[in-house]
Amino acid sequence: MSTTLFTTDPRTGAHSDTGIEQTADDAVDAIVEVAVGAAERLEQRDRAWRADLLDTLADMLEERRDLLVSTAAAETGLSSGRLNGELTRTTFQFRLFAEAVREGGYLEVAIDRAAETPMGPQPDVRRILVPTGPVGVFGSSNFPFAFSVPGGDTASALAAGNPVIAKAHSAHPMTSRASYDALREGVERADGPSGTISIVYGQAAGSRLVAHPGLAAVGFTGSLGAAEKLREIVHRRQRPIPFYGELQSVNPLIITEEALRARGEVIAAGLAASVTGSAGQLCTKPGIAFVPSGERADAFAAQLVTAMSEAAAGVLLNDRVLASFQAAERELEEADSVESLLGASAASADADGGFVVEARVLRVHASRVTVDHTVEAFGPLVLLVEYDTTDQLLGALVAVPDSLTTTLHVEEGDLPMVARILPQITPRAGRLVFNGYPTGVRVSWAQHHGGPWPATNSLHTSVGVTAMRRFLRPLAWQNTPVSLLPKELRDDYRGIPRRVDGVLEMAETRS
Amino acid sequence: MSTTLFTTDPRTGAHSDTGIEQTADDAVDAIVEVAVGAAERLEQRDRAWRADLLDTLADMLEERRDLLVSTAAAETGLSSGRLNGELTRTTFQFRLFAEAVREGGYLEVAIDRAAETPMGPQPDVRRILVPTGPVGVFGSSNFPFAFSVPGGDTASALAAGNPVIAKAHSAHPMTSRASYDALREGVERADGPSGTISIVYGQAAGSRLVAHPGLAAVGFTGSLGAAEKLREIVHRRQRPIPFYGELQSVNPLIITEEALRARGEVIAAGLAASVTGSAGQLCTKPGIAFVPSGERADAFAAQLVTAMSEAAAGVLLNDRVLASFQAAERELEEADSVESLLGASAASADADGGFVVEARVLRVHASRVTVDHTVEAFGPLVLLVEYDTTDQLLGALVAVPDSLTTTLHVEEGDLPMVARILPQITPRAGRLVFNGYPTGVRVSWAQHHGGPWPATNSLHTSVGVTAMRRFLRPLAWQNTPVSLLPKELRDDYRGIPRRVDGVLEMAETRS
Repeated sequence: MSTTLFTTDPRTGAHSDTGIEQTADDAVDAIVEVAVGAAERLEQRDRAWRADLLDTLADMLEERRDLLVSTAAAETGLSSGRLNGELTRTTFQFRLFAEAVREGGYLEVAIDRAAETPMGPQPDVRRILVPTGPVGVFGSSNFPFAFSVPGGDTASALAAGNPVIAKAHSAHPMTSRASYDALREGVERADGPSGTISIVYGQAAGSRLVAHPGLAAVGFTGSLGAAEKLREIVHRRQRPIPFYGELQSVNPLIITEEALRARGEVIAAGLAASVTGSAGQLCTKPGIAFVPSGERADAFAAQLVTAMSEAAAGVLLNDRVLASFQAAERELEEADSVESLLGASAASADADGGFVVEARVLRVHASRVTVDHTVEAFGPLVLLVEYDTTDQLLGALVAVPDSLTTTLHVEEGDLPMVARILPQITPRAGRLVFNGYPTGVRVSWAQHHGGPWPATNSLHTSVGVTAMRRFLRPLAWQNTPVSLLPKELRDDYRGIPRRVDGVLEMAETRS
Repeated sequence: MSTTLFTTDPRTGAHSDTGIEQTADDAVDAIVEVAVGAAERLEQRDRAWRADLLDTLADMLEERRDLLVSTAAAETGLSSGRLNGELTRTTFQFRLFAEAVREGGYLEVAIDRAAETPMGPQPDVRRILVPTGPVGVFGSSNFPFAFSVPGGDTASALAAGNPVIAKAHSAHPMTSRASYDALREGVERADGPSGTISIVYGQAAGSRLVAHPGLAAVGFTGSLGAAEKLREIVHRRQRPIPFYGELQSVNPLIITEEALRARGEVIAAGLAASVTGSAGQLCTKPGIAFVPSGERADAFAAQLVTAMSEAAAGVLLNDRVLASFQAAERELEEADSVESLLGASAASADADGGFVVEARVLRVHASRVTVDHTVEAFGPLVLLVEYDTTDQLLGALVAVPDSLTTTLHVEEGDLPMVARILPQITPRAGRLVFNGYPTGVRVSWAQHHGGPWPATNSLHTSVGVTAMRRFLRPLAWQNTPVSLLPKELRDDYRGIPRRVDGVLEMAETRS
């Protein structure tokens, strides 16, 4: 049995040998042990160094842009335009975390000075967040940069001060290796400890990594099924560690009566672009769209079908994504009262060996919607649901699993109605999008990319500055001689925001 | 088979029937469903109301002080003095969370306004934390107030806006019920929704509660064994939920050469008080103390033995704590080269049926220390470890499990040595205590009561303001019409600290 990994061209389905060996068990163990050593050495570096490291990693990815994009284009079938945009987002993300590290608020420093209290005299207590230790990163197939080896999990774990061990994605091993090479050389350029970033290849190596006692956390983006397998390994560990999984999402989109009247055609075009971009393989793709029934709904459906039929053919990322899309497509077509408005089942679309599928529009009435209609189809498919009344809309929404996002297209006149139904919508999504589309996730301080299960299995995920918090733990220092205190906890330090005796104080200087 | 719970007087071992029925399965289900409804109604209340609720709950506990303390004294064997102090701490905790709710920083509001970025134009994104849903609380036997029905898990979950379902502790069912009665009446006085606080009785009811799909999180303080059973139930749920467990801790205390010389006798007295207070049944009790070997160590041991032999007899909380203490005592006595300096094995101390044990001092040399010597003995026992060199100290510390706390007694002259060894100590504790004792955990903004596994299995636990965060999740609002935005996310609101375009802004007004 060959132990090397192969790579596949999704446009043709042709395999080729990468020459990359799967990582053997003892090699995985050695890698984790080096990472544990790196964790100790990283603790000795200050925030300024770590912020510079993140900037250097962004620089290195930029320097390798052409190689990274061409490698990923060959392995994923994604367009160079999309991949260039994704790499820009990826380097921006490293620089945003660098900015957050310099700003220092993420340390959540709190200082309670010794005081008389209702419980008598109390000691001086000073709290700071410290790194948890080596983080294992399992990226997704659909974002070979932004949610893979150089993605948000890696950037946030490094920003928090932890070494990262990435598991190369089986659908883009060459891209994983090229990304890793850039990051490793960036660490060397910044004179960082060996083991700050490392990589393992192959599914068995990934399992071994998650089971290793030296690992402190896992960041995961991928399918519910793969997550369950890894969670089982985590559960069997002696020392429990957090498993941060971003899993699946149907992302309902709701159009109100007023919005349909005012902007139906524009929304149809926008929805088509959002459903077909990246061949619909985005975790935030709107998979189910609710439209008020009637004549305007018919016009909307026709406009959507036209716009989607004009989109480029969808090349799916790999055979597993294809198989899963085909299965979901069939399930939805066979669900009660579903009619197909555009495209045919992908089962027959595989003639030339590539993972090419047609864009699909299906339709059903809200009164028929059950959980059978709310399967996630990871690809260019949207189910239109026509509703007569707000109650019917809310009834159908109950069948939609909790999601990363819920989108509402509304107009001024609808706002009272929307305000009334929001309490039923907000508990079931991580992000609410108004008059826009959930795809194209902004990377910024306030951003949040998560949602109630099954969207994720944790409170925080890999996008937005608070992603760092997943890899930090509090450490309290009580009555500590000043010379032993971390710089940020000393009285005379004012370089970061701190809470002193319960009162938030701004930074006076930046350092 | 009787379905009522009994209560036990730990001073005599005598049982009596409480008349409290174990909660049947269908009753547990109904309770969770009412709590799910309460969660929706609590969402409609503002922060000012919730802060007032917390103050009202504190008031109610104060009004019931005599009843609560006398009930707990009968069930736990703890002194009225200790229980009065604990109740004060418990009401203070409610008021501290009320203060945090009014201050509003815990919402972590971040606003990124629409902007041009390297990724093109980006939408307005506003993030806030929202409650996760009903929280199950499993308290501990040793803190019938502060870590039980009205404890930190309950207070922080309510502060975050969630309903709480407490599982009554089997070792203090009457105290659990009396505490619940006070909280429920407090909710009524504050006109809160029914189901804001509820209680279930019996182990089967606790298991049913944790398995119920409506539960959103579990807060637990107790033994590693009980935690494992509940974690197994959590793991089998379809929808994963966080399990925040505070489990066990040995709490090493280290005395340097200089500190022993300067303050040996004072430290011996302080250590004796810390080990014997509450009969040693505190999760932060120092269970292992490292002393430099030599003549002064002999004097220190003698002083410690004297001080501990003068402490009141230890009444343990219940038969399980007694059995576990006896087992740990035997394991430690039988470990390599351990000598007993004070007390005899508790196996024979049970003559009159009460759970009374003698204070114990054991001793071993650091060169002999293995994991056999670092078993947690939950009761009035300390193992003295004599070390010749710093390397020997560090070698022995490796055998100590990661803990809630590590304590260091140091003097000015030792600081360079202590600074050198700190990197080996900080990764293995949640709180570092200098020249004091780890028992008597201050309740304050900066406090943190957790530590790496097996001290806890999560990053945050129930003490300190950030305990609230465990029961909150982020929700991002994108391009939202202002009338639909939560008050705290609107441009014109300045009542709480917020991060706007990455820059922290203080509150201008309090509201």
